[in-house]
Amino acid sequence: MTTKFKRGFASDNNSGVHPTIMQAILKANEGHVVAYGDDPYTKSAVAKFKEIFGPETQVYFVYNGTGANVLGLQAMTKPFNAIICAQTAHINEDECGAPEKHTGCKLLTLPTEDGKIRVEQIRPLLHAKGNEHHAQPRVISITQATELGTVYGPDEIEAITRFAHDNGMLVHMDGARISNAAASLGTGLREITRDVGVDVLSFGGTKNGMMFGEAVLVFDPELARDLKYIRKQSTQLASKMRFIAVQFESLLTDNLWLENATHANRMARLLEKKVRDIPGVEITQDVEINALFVRLPKEVIPRLQEESFFYVWDDQNSIVRWMTSFDTTEEDIEAFVNLLRKQLASG
Amino acid sequence: MTTKFKRGFASDNNSGVHPTIMQAILKANEGHVVAYGDDPYTKSAVAKFKEIFGPETQVYFVYNGTGANVLGLQAMTKPFNAIICAQTAHINEDECGAPEKHTGCKLLTLPTEDGKIRVEQIRPLLHAKGNEHHAQPRVISITQATELGTVYGPDEIEAITRFAHDNGMLVHMDGARISNAAASLGTGLREITRDVGVDVLSFGGTKNGMMFGEAVLVFDPELARDLKYIRKQSTQLASKMRFIAVQFESLLTDNLWLENATHANRMARLLEKKVRDIPGVEITQDVEINALFVRLPKEVIPRLQEESFFYVWDDQNSIVRWMTSFDTTEEDIEAFVNLLRKQLASG
Amino acid sequence: MTTKFKRGFASDNNSGVHPTIMQAILKANEGHVVAYGDDPYTKSAVAKFKEIFGPETQVYFVYNGTGANVLGLQAMTKPFNAIICAQTAHINEDECGAPEKHTGCKLLTLPTEDGKIRVEQIRPLLHAKGNEHHAQPRVISITQATELGTVYGPDEIEAITRFAHDNGMLVHMDGARISNAAASLGTGLREITRDVGVDVLSFGGTKNGMMFGEAVLVFDPELARDLKYIRKQSTQLASKMRFIAVQFESLLTDNLWLENATHANRMARLLEKKVRDIPGVEITQDVEINALFVRLPKEVIPRLQEESFFYVWDDQNSIVRWMTSFDTTEEDIEAFVNLLRKQLASG
Amino acid sequence: MTTKFKRGFASDNNSGVHPTIMQAILKANEGHVVAYGDDPYTKSAVAKFKEIFGPETQVYFVYNGTGANVLGLQAMTKPFNAIICAQTAHINEDECGAPEKHTGCKLLTLPTEDGKIRVEQIRPLLHAKGNEHHAQPRVISITQATELGTVYGPDEIEAITRFAHDNGMLVHMDGARISNAAASLGTGLREITRDVGVDVLSFGGTKNGMMFGEAVLVFDPELARDLKYIRKQSTQLASKMRFIAVQFESLLTDNLWLENATHANRMARLLEKKVRDIPGVEITQDVEINALFVRLPKEVIPRLQEESFFYVWDDQNSIVRWMTSFDTTEEDIEAFVNLLRKQLASG
Repeated sequence: MTTKFKRGFASDNNSGVHPTIMQAILKANEGHVVAYGDDPYTKSAVAKFKEIFGPETQVYFVYNGTGANVLGLQAMTKPFNAIICAQTAHINEDECGAPEKHTGCKLLTLPTEDGKIRVEQIRPLLHAKGNEHHAQPRVISITQATELGTVYGPDEIEAITRFAHDNGMLVHMDGARISNAAASLGTGLREITRDVGVDVLSFGGTKNGMMFGEAVLVFDPELARDLKYIRKQSTQLASKMRFIAVQFESLLTDNLWLENATHANRMARLLEKKVRDIPGVEITQDVEINALFVRLPKEVIPRLQEESFFYVWDDQNSIVRWMTSFDTTEEDIEAFVNLLRKQLASG
Repeated sequence: MTTKFKRGFASDNNSGVHPTIMQAILKANEGHVVAYGDDPYTKSAVAKFKEIFGPETQVYFVYNGTGANVLGLQAMTKPFNAIICAQTAHINEDECGAPEKHTGCKLLTLPTEDGKIRVEQIRPLLHAKGNEHHAQPRVISITQATELGTVYGPDEIEAITRFAHDNGMLVHMDGARISNAAASLGTGLREITRDVGVDVLSFGGTKNGMMFGEAVLVFDPELARDLKYIRKQSTQLASKMRFIAVQFESLLTDNLWLENATHANRMARLLEKKVRDIPGVEITQDVEINALFVRLPKEVIPRLQEESFFYVWDDQNSIVRWMTSFDTTEEDIEAFVNLLRKQLASG
Repeated sequence: MTTKFKRGFASDNNSGVHPTIMQAILKANEGHVVAYGDDPYTKSAVAKFKEIFGPETQVYFVYNGTGANVLGLQAMTKPFNAIICAQTAHINEDECGAPEKHTGCKLLTLPTEDGKIRVEQIRPLLHAKGNEHHAQPRVISITQATELGTVYGPDEIEAITRFAHDNGMLVHMDGARISNAAASLGTGLREITRDVGVDVLSFGGTKNGMMFGEAVLVFDPELARDLKYIRKQSTQLASKMRFIAVQFESLLTDNLWLENATHANRMARLLEKKVRDIPGVEITQDVEINALFVRLPKEVIPRLQEESFFYVWDDQNSIVRWMTSFDTTEEDIEAFVNLLRKQLASG
Repeated sequence: MTTKFKRGFASDNNSGVHPTIMQAILKANEGHVVAYGDDPYTKSAVAKFKEIFGPETQVYFVYNGTGANVLGLQAMTKPFNAIICAQTAHINEDECGAPEKHTGCKLLTLPTEDGKIRVEQIRPLLHAKGNEHHAQPRVISITQATELGTVYGPDEIEAITRFAHDNGMLVHMDGARISNAAASLGTGLREITRDVGVDVLSFGGTKNGMMFGEAVLVFDPELARDLKYIRKQSTQLASKMRFIAVQFESLLTDNLWLENATHANRMARLLEKKVRDIPGVEITQDVEINALFVRLPKEVIPRLQEESFFYVWDDQNSIVRWMTSFDTTEEDIEAFVNLLRKQLASG
């Protein structure tokens, strides 16, 4: 049997659905259940999340990552607030201004080499506090793992959350790849989120083998008080909710989330190992999850893209991004490395 | 084999996915394709829509109905505009204020007995035009079929669109149940939308057998110029888009949309036939699609709900709503009518 | 000396500034004071408000009535809330959708014959509470005096505020003509606002003899916590604040507010007395403040407008609005009544 | 006669109203005129602006600078757009997030040493164009004179406007101190705005001797099509408009705008001359308008502030801002320099 559409290294969004999750979807497709989340599948998936993150955790399923981020940020802010994040943050770079539009807030962005931000960068922004002429800093949003494929250690996160809470602020974590981060660190999910002071987490599903669906997790129920209204008004309430819920239930059963993430991470490290010594290839970020950032000779990039598509990350500096996925195989890597060698040779 | 979750008459949202559509999903789950809609499944589904609605039609897949409505309305308005609709309109009653939040516009609502609005009601609102103190009427939004299960005839729609266009306004149609309307009228989809002057259509998929997914159709490409940005900023851009697209492709193939809608409509008429002469039952709206609005003795309602859940539509007047679905069977109806008779008898 | 621009009956907005207030402005124009409200004039004017309304009262000066309303409503709501008001309310009819744009909320409007709303009308709207599909009622906004020139009695207000508070809602009062209402009722300002449960008051200055300026009064300091940021973000923070403050200080000194309002009200009653028995003239609302609503023969209206401009209130029913002002004289009325008689005679 | 409130160097906002303008206000205070701008004073002031900027110029009076900026930006953008500006821009730093809240747009900020931005900095931001994941650059907003007291030459402005127009973008100018800039350059107002390609100008009045009031000038009538609705919905439509209009009429008569600005600029240069050689004083920006940025020994600042208040601009670097005004006198400067010398000596 031939695969009509080849697997590549463009994005973990380009993969399909993990077979176990697809089976769970199929099984959930019988009879009628109440729409909008008042169904047994949703109850069961919520229970799984509470097992992992603690019983107070409030769980709101949504369609996608931008939706999850926008919901969490709305729950934490008023329009005159500022949200502090890395310049590279998805909420800043890749959501077409959705955070500003939905919250009314200003984003205060910090330069970063590795996708992470540090307390020392945030501290000077507090001069705005109490001054009505300035947007009031209220949320620090960090991405775990970062958009540059790096991972915050638990202590790094805690330094940020402690600083935030000491200064009347809250911490949002964009966890589109939280599973890859936990797999990389060898920790559980709770140890790098709730236990180190994160207030609201966008828990990613789609990039880790689901068809669609993310979860907004709120660890302080008071913060979640309005979330059901915010979700509905933000167009993120699914009618046939069971089909998001059952995917999460499947992902959280028998550590499928970890298995998928571990595999994807391992494939990235394998790819790194196979390319790092090839002349003309320069790895520009630590490979901590399922992403490689690689500087290539400029003329090689389009030719390689033509054979196996991927995205240019930084055009000026000739840096591209390669991502592995839960379904990446060693053969995929072998084939891709061969293409790379061929193109570099013919450069 | 027993069905764990019984089918009922609460909502067409409570049903699952039509088996043909589920098969299409399964088949689409192989290999990698580019995310966010630049994939062959999306191209193919868009082509199907263009076949039906004409080649200029611009097609934007989204997650749900509120998303579709909010996108269309944003494309048609500026924040100082007013959107005219029936008081019963989903955009007014059932979207938690999403249209106001996303567009900034005022909703001007018109009373209605049957879910439809008429030109005579709209005309007086035009006094606001040109006066900066008043929100400027820009869009008339109608629902086809209406939230009360009634259907606009093509001439009724055309009267509204002509009036709108003559007065510098546009017409939005919330077509969450557009297939049921076409099935009811015996027309094609285009004859009751584009051909009678509708500018933007929310084309419903979820209520007609899909797992999730709606389409925003824009018949004037100029109106769609910004829609890709609006979709992204409104959190409605799906990463694994192929899984929405392939459902629509399936729904639009071999007239599955029509088959599903026709069946649901037929089941509603059968239910009507079986209950209309039962003492204590009063049908309050014409049964034109897959919905019945029924006045019942007040004390009977909760007892019947306990046996087979459905929603009270109008508490004060003791009116309930029963909906059929693509998967409703004659046995379901038989059983439900028996429950009803029993509860009425024991009243 | 001739007056270049004649006084008329179009609006209390068409008059200029009361001479006492103008003198106060002149006196305030010396030296430098800190901008944005941290100046002695503002302190003094705030103190005057606290004398009248109690020391906990929080006072925010703004430029105009729409600004005042939009600030108060923002302080009381989140975007998924609904604001309940009369269909005739200024916030609904005359602010070009500003409340929806600034708050994101839905306005739920109630029909009214006399500009007032009643608890019986509001009660059915509470069915939405707790249901995420519906905008959540949070504020009842009433206008005192109403846009139809009528006045709520203290007991009428208290019935609404008690109902609101019993149901987790707040009460906003648009007091663009609060002084005229107090003058009409013969009460103080506090008795018809704070003492009967109003939470936030837009206190009108411009229509009662000021050049520009309104005040947002918040009686529960907790509700005002964010107001300084909301005011700035809403473009309503005046840099040379002293010039608003000193006007209010003047208005609140020696009961100038009451003197102006009483005079305007008296002029309206005089006008009523002089026209009510003229054939062809029908007074359609009780004349309780400085406004008359009058049905006239249709053809007379434009001819009379040409001689002395005023606004048509209800074109279909041939009803016009005449307003008196702090500077209206008995001679103005005499002359206007003569014009009216002449036009009616030549009808 | 003693001045109750001493003049200082904190801000041109701390001064009062120029006597000529105050006289104009007094003269305008007679009789009734139609509210909301349909009055002879407004017509006359608009005509003055058209004389200066050309007859196509559309003129909208508003209350303040944030209002003017927010109106202009709304006229030029849709919510998915990005607005490019200097990090130091008033719209970014000093409006409490008003631009984001009112427009929904993202602000893309550029670092700057002198308050100006350059085309080379803007060019890389264009990579976002056409990509739905990124906010779409649409407006470049520059401040003239800048927040750091520097002035763009006409050629510098033209380089930016040409680049903007070549790339489908528009240019907004925050001209809160446009008169000071023209006075500094020795040009007319039109030569540094419309003639060099600026599309929309916030024309400042308050900081140059008015009580309140700014004007939004739009040079392409098409861009102004919605502005009257935007102004009303943004709470910036004054009812007694004549009192803004007459101030502008006065400011634009006999070059009062230029006289005031020239004087203020001259006072700043005088202050510079008197302090620049004092040990411990370092001027950190070119003194091109009525502002000085000065590095002082840290411990001297609070002591000097206590005697004559001014703002610290950059706490970390010990830089303060001193501003002169239309009413600053040579004696004021003499006295302030003496205070400075005294404090530095006792340091």
